[in-house]
Amino acid sequence: MELSIGEIAVLVDGELLGPADSVVKGVAPLDQAGPDDISFAVSEKYRAQVGETHACAVLVPLGFQEPQKTLVRVKNPYLAMAKVSTLLHTVSEPVLGISQRAYVGNNFKCGPDISVYPGVFIGHDVTVGNGVTLHPGVMLGNGVKMGDDVVIHPNVSILNRCRIGSRVVIHAGTVIGSDGFGHAPDGDRYHKIPQTGIVRIDEDVEIGACNTIDRATFGVTWIKRGVKTDNQVHIAHNVVVGENTLLVAQVGIAGSVTIGHNTILAGQVGVAQHLTIGNRVIIGPRSGIGKSVPDGEIVSGAPGMPHRLWLKTSNIIQKLPDMKKKLKRLEERIKMLEEALGRNEK
Amino acid sequence: MELSIGEIAVLVDGELLGPADSVVKGVAPLDQAGPDDISFAVSEKYRAQVGETHACAVLVPLGFQEPQKTLVRVKNPYLAMAKVSTLLHTVSEPVLGISQRAYVGNNFKCGPDISVYPGVFIGHDVTVGNGVTLHPGVMLGNGVKMGDDVVIHPNVSILNRCRIGSRVVIHAGTVIGSDGFGHAPDGDRYHKIPQTGIVRIDEDVEIGACNTIDRATFGVTWIKRGVKTDNQVHIAHNVVVGENTLLVAQVGIAGSVTIGHNTILAGQVGVAQHLTIGNRVIIGPRSGIGKSVPDGEIVSGAPGMPHRLWLKTSNIIQKLPDMKKKLKRLEERIKMLEEALGRNEK
Amino acid sequence: MELSIGEIAVLVDGELLGPADSVVKGVAPLDQAGPDDISFAVSEKYRAQVGETHACAVLVPLGFQEPQKTLVRVKNPYLAMAKVSTLLHTVSEPVLGISQRAYVGNNFKCGPDISVYPGVFIGHDVTVGNGVTLHPGVMLGNGVKMGDDVVIHPNVSILNRCRIGSRVVIHAGTVIGSDGFGHAPDGDRYHKIPQTGIVRIDEDVEIGACNTIDRATFGVTWIKRGVKTDNQVHIAHNVVVGENTLLVAQVGIAGSVTIGHNTILAGQVGVAQHLTIGNRVIIGPRSGIGKSVPDGEIVSGAPGMPHRLWLKTSNIIQKLPDMKKKLKRLEERIKMLEEALGRNEK
Repeated sequence: MELSIGEIAVLVDGELLGPADSVVKGVAPLDQAGPDDISFAVSEKYRAQVGETHACAVLVPLGFQEPQKTLVRVKNPYLAMAKVSTLLHTVSEPVLGISQRAYVGNNFKCGPDISVYPGVFIGHDVTVGNGVTLHPGVMLGNGVKMGDDVVIHPNVSILNRCRIGSRVVIHAGTVIGSDGFGHAPDGDRYHKIPQTGIVRIDEDVEIGACNTIDRATFGVTWIKRGVKTDNQVHIAHNVVVGENTLLVAQVGIAGSVTIGHNTILAGQVGVAQHLTIGNRVIIGPRSGIGKSVPDGEIVSGAPGMPHRLWLKTSNIIQKLPDMKKKLKRLEERIKMLEEALGRNEK
Repeated sequence: MELSIGEIAVLVDGELLGPADSVVKGVAPLDQAGPDDISFAVSEKYRAQVGETHACAVLVPLGFQEPQKTLVRVKNPYLAMAKVSTLLHTVSEPVLGISQRAYVGNNFKCGPDISVYPGVFIGHDVTVGNGVTLHPGVMLGNGVKMGDDVVIHPNVSILNRCRIGSRVVIHAGTVIGSDGFGHAPDGDRYHKIPQTGIVRIDEDVEIGACNTIDRATFGVTWIKRGVKTDNQVHIAHNVVVGENTLLVAQVGIAGSVTIGHNTILAGQVGVAQHLTIGNRVIIGPRSGIGKSVPDGEIVSGAPGMPHRLWLKTSNIIQKLPDMKKKLKRLEERIKMLEEALGRNEK
Repeated sequence: MELSIGEIAVLVDGELLGPADSVVKGVAPLDQAGPDDISFAVSEKYRAQVGETHACAVLVPLGFQEPQKTLVRVKNPYLAMAKVSTLLHTVSEPVLGISQRAYVGNNFKCGPDISVYPGVFIGHDVTVGNGVTLHPGVMLGNGVKMGDDVVIHPNVSILNRCRIGSRVVIHAGTVIGSDGFGHAPDGDRYHKIPQTGIVRIDEDVEIGACNTIDRATFGVTWIKRGVKTDNQVHIAHNVVVGENTLLVAQVGIAGSVTIGHNTILAGQVGVAQHLTIGNRVIIGPRSGIGKSVPDGEIVSGAPGMPHRLWLKTSNIIQKLPDMKKKLKRLEERIKMLEEALGRNEK
């Protein structure tokens, strides 16, 4: 798609400084943009690069000055960039219908405009909304239910009875509804605990590639509206993830954890079972969380601690060899003092 | 399936307190159970919830009292729950035979009652036992051999010559028999070391979703009877995992590690190559194991240390800023003492 | 394939001590080798095992002595083993052509000798070189381009427009070209940032099983010549990995990281976004890297620090309970000294 700079300024509710009629075909960073691209600067820090960019216009913060360039001043240039990029890259994919090379079970219900690629498997009693795209190798188990405008990327498995809300995107290789890890000790062996629940994913969720989200032992594993997960995230049985929470790559959440809304778990974080992580919490990368975290906390480290404390302790850890030496030296000095005073330790 | 409470009491070898004839259709936790469900309480701690549950009966420990409710007293309520749930949820899936939409190579041998879904690929010279189910997107390489009653979930790849024992379950997206990571330095480049071995998985093993288990460089990577792995577990070439060992989610085991039987590795643990982890070992979550661990040890931390020591050290780490201050203060006090005594440090 | 020991000695540029005419059919470790196998010893340490092996010959370092055995002395026995094993295990797989059960989009271009298995999906405008093998369940998106002699293992997804160089191997279950994790905050919600770039993988790269490599937001995520990744590696958008760098299992690289050539990241390492890791760097297992690392450094720990320092600190961590006690004892001794001198602290 193409847009004029004037149209863009209107769409992002921005103040245009410069001519309105140049045509924009793409979005690119300042140093990579060409004359058909619009670019963006998130702060004054990028003033020099704005001066040098070949972009035909730049999305900038309110008050930003650069008389040589066409500017579109907006409250949040990063968000404006995302919105413009979305508009420019929206391609109305052709509706393919259901490929003859897909397998469709009994009692399939769907909206009129769906795309089911070759190599898709749809079990019995599956219902999907309108505007759904199922890419090659997707497997939907029996009784799966899905809203409108869902996109399931290649080789994703969504197992029996799981429910997927409207506008959900699931990236390639992900597994939704695998059995939770539940085995009751029985002498030296284990007896499997049947995993009888489902996974429920609400609207506007985006799940990364090669995620594994286990069905509940009883009831639901529940990913609420607007959650975004990165790649290789593991979510165990009976976990609840609140609205608009972000789970960055390789995070692992153990069973029955409840996470609030608008929380962020950075990459490679692990959360132990049965904990509650509050709303608007931030957990730093690689943290190992063994205790519940109240609303609004910023936590880092393994074991997790307040982020400021973690900054201090992780600095000190590098100084432990010095501390050890210093401790030894102090001991010697004390001994000398004790001897000088005629006192013998011990 | 349905069972009367009387039948359940017999099946779990329990003592029934209350009427035997109510019909049970499901299992549910105390707070979610309805009048068709049986529930369970693992200890006296749940006495109040047992009083309030809507379940028609509750599996409880020996000696548990609650006169208002129908109770089934058993030695191990959690195990009894698993057994009852298994009985209630056992559905005899219809035997589908081999779908026309599956591809079957030359010289395929199988038991009479198997289910091969559309989109399955079976290479040449493959043998599978009776009662095997291969879900959509499963790929079996040439020469794969499999016992009876194996269930392979969607989009699993089992590569050439690997062997799978009876009653094994492999969850979706898992890869068995990928090449081990072996590259011999050759100047600045690397020469690949052919991975000529196989993966052998013994009976009653359950492998989670999106696991990767590499074939051996020479010989076998060997997962012994009764092992259970959670999701996203990585097992490198030539690893041996002993009977009934549990590997929790996102564990990574480097090459040529040997792990004993009835051992537990908690989530996100890493084990360095060529180590031996003993029998009945427990390794705490997120531990990084760089030394072999003898039988029966409980180890935590990175680097791994005895669990009790780790509890102490991880408490002290949070107090390092205090320790540093205290050290500084002691230094000052010593200096003052030295001055008082007319001694000069240095 | 079979080779005589004489042929092997020539091929690895080695010095043969013993008869040249025995026939070698395989390679095996010293303790597993039979009379048809050649084995290898990387150092003098293995002298006793060389004496006891049943192998018909052993690849050994220059100067190695063992008069009872046929030896082939070489500069680098491990590399020589890799080369011999490659020769012995090279099977010229039959060329299958394009299976009728594969789906091929419009405008597909390919070399004359390719193997496309049943269940492969190839989008529109795809070009692949000669000698390419696409295993079952492989999905190539629209516009994918691939060089010669590429092997793509089962259930791999390579999404739109990604480019794969010659002689690349990609193991099962991997996803190339999933969307990067980019979401601009928009009040309490997030607006997705379109991921418009691609993944470019250069020649001679080997990618492990269940990797996820995200396409760039703009431009390319770039894996350069000779890189080898182990299983379950995550590489985010806009990352650049330099030539011949090794990424061991479960490594996670955040967005816009640049890694140099001939660098090694050990298992479970995490690297934070926008960092630069130099050439010939080694990062120890499970390290959490939060700062850029210059060329040639060896770094370990989380936060990362020079490896020698990390060795010291991780030893001291286990002694923290002792240090704490010692600190307390010193405090008491100082107090006693102060009292003896008639001084009151505080």
